[in-house]
Order: sequence, then structure tokens, then C-alpha cells
Amino acid sequence: MAVYTQVDEEELEKFLLGYDLGSVMSFKGIAEGVENTNYLLHTERGYYILTLYEKRVVAADLPFFIGLMEHLATRGINCPQPVKNRKGNALGELAGRPAMIVTFLEGVWLRRPNVQHCTALGRAMAELHQAGASFKLHRDNALGLAGWKKLAPLATPRADELAPGLAKLILDELAHVERNWPRALLAGVIHADLFPDNVFFLGEKLSGLIDFYFACNDLFAYDIAICLNSWCFEIDGSFNVTKSRALFAGYNSVRKLEQSEVEALPLLARGAALRILLTRTIDWLNVPPGAMVRPKDPLEYLKKLRFHRRIDHARDYGLAA
Amino acid sequence: MAVYTQVDEEELEKFLLGYDLGSVMSFKGIAEGVENTNYLLHTERGYYILTLYEKRVVAADLPFFIGLMEHLATRGINCPQPVKNRKGNALGELAGRPAMIVTFLEGVWLRRPNVQHCTALGRAMAELHQAGASFKLHRDNALGLAGWKKLAPLATPRADELAPGLAKLILDELAHVERNWPRALLAGVIHADLFPDNVFFLGEKLSGLIDFYFACNDLFAYDIAICLNSWCFEIDGSFNVTKSRALFAGYNSVRKLEQSEVEALPLLARGAALRILLTRTIDWLNVPPGAMVRPKDPLEYLKKLRFHRRIDHARDYGLAA
Repeated sequence: MAVYTQVDEEELEKFLLGYDLGSVMSFKGIAEGVENTNYLLHTERGYYILTLYEKRVVAADLPFFIGLMEHLATRGINCPQPVKNRKGNALGELAGRPAMIVTFLEGVWLRRPNVQHCTALGRAMAELHQAGASFKLHRDNALGLAGWKKLAPLATPRADELAPGLAKLILDELAHVERNWPRALLAGVIHADLFPDNVFFLGEKLSGLIDFYFACNDLFAYDIAICLNSWCFEIDGSFNVTKSRALFAGYNSVRKLEQSEVEALPLLARGAALRILLTRTIDWLNVPPGAMVRPKDPLEYLKKLRFHRRIDHARDYGLAA
Repeated sequence: MAVYTQVDEEELEKFLLGYDLGSVMSFKGIAEGVENTNYLLHTERGYYILTLYEKRVVAADLPFFIGLMEHLATRGINCPQPVKNRKGNALGELAGRPAMIVTFLEGVWLRRPNVQHCTALGRAMAELHQAGASFKLHRDNALGLAGWKKLAPLATPRADELAPGLAKLILDELAHVERNWPRALLAGVIHADLFPDNVFFLGEKLSGLIDFYFACNDLFAYDIAICLNSWCFEIDGSFNVTKSRALFAGYNSVRKLEQSEVEALPLLARGAALRILLTRTIDWLNVPPGAMVRPKDPLEYLKKLRFHRRIDHARDYGLAA
């Protein structure tokens, strides 16, 4: 939940004078997303999301995100569309923050996705990877391997407060992942944060993808590894191999994974779990006083990481290869 | 901001089967309101607010609130309307909480209301008081004088952590207000929480009132006293007598305040400030670990209370009487 920045009506009206959206009908803070402040904005023209970019989003990256959303939409990927102001810019400033209005995407994110939803997710991810291929801008993954090495020293000094031995596990895992990271897999634009809350459904049909603020250039199979973690474990911590099979099947129906990508999955899944374990541990240990965000549980990802460490081969995820 | 209870899509769909609202198009937690969990619900039929009732709202009071909203709407007061399920009930249960769907009210609440908005507020409040006169149900003000006496012992033991001398001030003030409370003023249904975030505007026009979960039977002039506190002070703590005059003028244009009501205002304003000071102090001292709500500043109301203590006569609020 996240309304870090309050916007008053005078600021809002002044900001909207720059747009052709008519007057405001309603304006409500949304309790979703943990990185930015989001408002649901209803104007005479329709419904929109107004986002104020906080901490982790770097203003210099916004042209990449905006360009990508526009690029994907023209290639049939349903995602929020940046709304341009009268000067032709999607990016503005409001309440001292970079700010953008995007179109409202119908759909509901699923607290409990089922097997069919995982198939739909795999298909949509492969379509995203294909549609992104012709996108010209480039953004390194700030939360890729190089990023984890920077994050580890922020997590380890107090990590054992969360679980005894966690600091050592993080360092061991980082060393292992770095030593074995695949260098020659297919890469391109990935979403890098396709957790269930960023994938909307209308009934059983996937209606769109949101929140491209981690999107970057990285291994396609790493995007899959993120979803193995975030879609295929049950609440009790068990791994649902029917869901991972469905995810792979959906992906393969659009673009068949190469053998090298399949083989890399156990390691990539460890890396993806480590990435979330790192950021959640740091967030957990650094909740500011008076914070309105309850940090997510890092130990969920410690359990997932331990699961992947016991995996020898991608076939254990249900991949036939 | 408040999403205390997460609702998953299966629970939601099952709940909505009881209604004639079609299928869900979108469902987002709203970061507004501090008492209950609110979701913006978009279905094939339109936009609604789904509320789950938490802590302070007592289930036994819900028929009063629901009946009042329906009663007021048929008398021209623009407020959310309870949506009945197929069995004809407005009240249901979802995620283990009493739950209700109401119609979505267009409008924006004003972070910085101006003088004209205060006039509109006064008028709407008087209309509300008149429309409520024929409402048959009765609800004592749980946060009236008797309630403050119950709250004081919860606030005073640690109140001095907030401001030295606060505990004594609370007890002195409570004794003073009780000794002088007017017994013979006009009473009826009041909103009892007409803070700016419960009053919506479309442009300069007041578009409706929301959040009737403190509504009760009490002195009409006490409702005005609450608004003197919540609408007529500037952010720097100064009292804007032009705003209070506008509030009175708006009210008087619908129902002229009686002389006895005017004379009681300084005391009622002290009581209204004490009521907020009490609940905010208790909330401040009892933030649960991991809370997603930043408690509101009690000291804002300590300053307001001190202002009212120096008022001898309602004319100091700009009332000519």
C-alpha cells in the first residue's frame, strides 16, 4: 500500500491544465504498489492512474519505461499507456516528484492464481519478450547480478536478526550464482517483476500487464525464473509442479525455450529468489518510523531459495527437456 | 489509508454472486478512511465502494447507518447508497467482516477548502439536519460526553509522553465541558464527522457527503462545532474567521441557528476538540507493530482546544449574535 505523497487539489488542477483530460471527477489514493504513489484519477475523459515516482525509480530511467509501454502497446501487448500532455510529454512533475498519467487497465490481480492462469502468464510473457525485441532503448538490470553484489553488504550485517545463518547463506549463494551465471543465453527486454499483482485478469482471461518499472535488458529465462518463484509456490511453501508445467507450456506455445535456457533454470531460479530475499531483507531491516508500508516477509524467499538449492535439473520443475 | 483486510478473488466472486452487479472489471484497495477497509469495485454495472467494517464500527449500528443513507438520499441529500443483494439485504459478510457495497459518489475532497467551500458545507449540513428529522431510528453518540469519560482513562496514563501536562489538561477540560454542557439545545441526526475528507466537491460545487459511520443523535450545534475545528483553522494553526462566518452563513441560509445554539458554540467547540484530542492521543499511543496507518497528530487538536479556551463569546468566531 502506498500513498507516500499527498497531492492537494490546487496542485492537481494546475498539473491537469497541461492535459486535455477535462476536469476532475474523482481522485483517490490506491493502496497498491510499494514503490510509487498511485492515485486513481477520474476525469471527464475517463479513468486514469496518476503515478508519482518515489525513491527507487530513477528519473533518468523513465524515458525507457514510457517508451517501452508505448512500444509494447503498438505491438498488441495490453498495458497502461502513457498520456501525453499538451506539449507532447508523458512525463511531468507534481508535488516535487516526477509524475505520469497512464490509461486505466481493467482487470483484477489474482491473490490465488490457478494452473490456467499460469498458462496465460507464460504466453503473455513470451509475447512480451517477442514484442520487446524491436525496442531500441537499453536499460541494464539494476537489480541483476551486479546489483545483488552491491545490495549484499546492506543486508548481511543484520540479516541474522531475521534468521540465524542468513548472512552467510546470502554470501555463499551470491558466490555460487556468480560463479555459475550463464553468459550466453538469449536476452532482450524483460519485465523483471511479473508477480501476480502485476498481471490482470478479467474472468479467466489475462487482460494485461502493469508496472514496468523494473523492466530492463536481461536473460529471457530469468523472467521465467522470477515467475517460478512468484506463481508456482503454494501459500504453505510447497512447489506446484503442475503450475510450473503450465507456465512453461504457455511460454513454449509462443516461443520455444532453447535447451540452454531450460538447463539454466535451476540456477536462474536461485538468483531470482536471492534478488527478492536481498531487497526484502533490506526493506525489513530498514522500516522507517511511521512507515505506512508493511514490508513483505523475506523468509518466504529464504524458503524458496532453499527449495531451488535442492533442484538438480529443470525436469524437477516439470520441464520434460 | 486503510486496507486492513485483504480479500481474495474467490471470496469476492462468491460474495458478488449474491448481487446483481455482473462480473468484476477491477478491484483496488483505496488508501482513504482510517476506520474501515475500502475497495473501489468496478463491475459490468458501474463503479462502487466495497467496505469491510473493522474495529470501531459496531455491527449492531449498521442498520442505523444504512437506513440513514437511504433516508437521506430520498430527501435529496447526495450520499452513497447501499446496494442490496438478491435477498434484499444491504449488509453481508466478506472475509469474516461485515461488508457492504455502496454506490460510488463522484467528487474530490479538498485538502485546502476555501471560504466558498465553507459556505457550501454549512448549507449542506443544515440540509442534512433537516432531512434527518424524519428518520425513525435512534443512535446515541458513542463518542459524545459519556464516551469521552470512558476514553479519558485510556489516554491520560501516557498522555504526557506527547506533551507535558496533557493528562491534566484533558481531565480539567473534561470536567469543565461536563459541568457546562448545554442540555436544552435542538438535537437530531448529525453526521458527527464532517471533516474535509468526507465532503466531496466537483469544481466549486459540493457534490455529496460520505462516511456516515459516526452519525448519531446529538445537538445540531455540535456538528457545527466539529466543522469549526476541522474547516476553519489554517495549516499554521491560525483561526480563519472569514471561513467560520461563511460556514455560519451557509447554515443560516437553510436553518437559522437559535440564540441558545450560538451561545453554546464556544463550549461545544471545546468539546469537539477534546473528542478528537482524546481519540488521536489513544491512537497515537497504541500504534500496533507493523501498522499501515500513520496516526494523525493529536497536538493539532491540543492547539485548537487551547484556542477555544480563550474564546469568551461566539462573536469571536465571527457570529454577529
